[in-house]
Amino acid sequence: MNQTIETILNHRSIRSFKNEPLTDEQIHTIVQSAQAASTSSYIQAYTIIGVKDPAKKKKLAELAGGQSYVEENGHFFVFCADLYRHENIGKWEDADVISSLESTEKFMVAMIDASLAAQNASIAAESMGMGICYIGGIRNDLEAVSEVLQLPHRVIPLFGLAVGHPAADSSVKPRLPLNAVYHEDAYMSDEAGMKAELDRYDETISSYYHERTGGKRSDRWTEQMAKMLSGKKRMYMKEFVEKRGFDKR
Amino acid sequence: MNQTIETILNHRSIRSFKNEPLTDEQIHTIVQSAQAASTSSYIQAYTIIGVKDPAKKKKLAELAGGQSYVEENGHFFVFCADLYRHENIGKWEDADVISSLESTEKFMVAMIDASLAAQNASIAAESMGMGICYIGGIRNDLEAVSEVLQLPHRVIPLFGLAVGHPAADSSVKPRLPLNAVYHEDAYMSDEAGMKAELDRYDETISSYYHERTGGKRSDRWTEQMAKMLSGKKRMYMKEFVEKRGFDKR
Repeated sequence: MNQTIETILNHRSIRSFKNEPLTDEQIHTIVQSAQAASTSSYIQAYTIIGVKDPAKKKKLAELAGGQSYVEENGHFFVFCADLYRHENIGKWEDADVISSLESTEKFMVAMIDASLAAQNASIAAESMGMGICYIGGIRNDLEAVSEVLQLPHRVIPLFGLAVGHPAADSSVKPRLPLNAVYHEDAYMSDEAGMKAELDRYDETISSYYHERTGGKRSDRWTEQMAKMLSGKKRMYMKEFVEKRGFDKR
Repeated sequence: MNQTIETILNHRSIRSFKNEPLTDEQIHTIVQSAQAASTSSYIQAYTIIGVKDPAKKKKLAELAGGQSYVEENGHFFVFCADLYRHENIGKWEDADVISSLESTEKFMVAMIDASLAAQNASIAAESMGMGICYIGGIRNDLEAVSEVLQLPHRVIPLFGLAVGHPAADSSVKPRLPLNAVYHEDAYMSDEAGMKAELDRYDETISSYYHERTGGKRSDRWTEQMAKMLSGKKRMYMKEFVEKRGFDKR
């Protein structure tokens, strides 16, 4: 196993960082790594906002549901789907690009582009000995986040990425059995087989929590998922996304 | 610069592979790497289909617009957003999860999850000396691709990933200037500044094509984008995605 794969397999989310800001050189390397990711038809449909202003970080931490590590970290990035640049290009080149920009296809392209870039950024940071945590919590209130970051039309914040030197370790969380996630030649949709696989996984997860919490927690994965999905979270998203000029047609 | 960052910065899409199938161990390492990526609230909302059947690969190559490297490679993966598993969990746990599953928020979550996983897979493969190419072309006809892969409801193929030992090299394509993509504390939406930045980038891209094609091509990036976006591509996507149970509310 090479070092890169070791870094990848060693991933765990870090939620406590030392008070040690990243240098501009480190930020530069991380962003350059993000940009090196593949991009659909060369579109590069994302923008990354690095947040340094303490007041803005505090505000974002509140909006994300009071997660202290959004405020306290080495650096905080916000990855945004961005087609504002391309709207301008349409004007400058006198081309009718609006139908494209507002299509579900381009919404997907922008999200995929931004996510590939973010994962490169994460691996780059982790390879330098830093820890990372994705912050989906900023999606609690994208209207407010957009205001903090002064985002124009056709730009949507997708998630935050807290990066820094770990102040506390955490453990690698067991993933779904490989066979549940990887199928060959066709999707294995046999319900009984899936149930058996997830039952075994539930046991793994249950003991994982049991061990880590000294018996306080022992929830199964399927139980967690059912609970999480029963809560109708961020149901404003469709309206927001369309209002911002994405996913309209 | 460490080896991982070197691998990341050295990325170029490979479109010609040796006829040398990946071993099961290599496939295993790549999928395991994919699974190690962060996942929103532990949801793991994706499935990866590895395509080995030559007839299916041929069919997918046709559907992707006749790209030979979809058929000829070391291995072909299709990354899918998957909430079918979670629909079953809702049934088994007697929980009302449908509103969540059909929300735009969960459509985003599944796409982000799948993309983070795919980029880990790509980096893992590249770190082992292989080349990769993302295949957005499968989105030309997702109805047909879903049929080939026998995908159930609430599963959408997002993109393919061709992996293998490179038979021909290609060059690293210059990305947007870092300042265009990375902003600090607020989005820099000043139109004149953006135009100046993209004008410089256009010169870079123009010479890049000029050099690589012996003067046959010299298109600017903004010109490429305007042309690409004027073509109203894959406008069936919204209807397809909703029909498959995503992005409905």
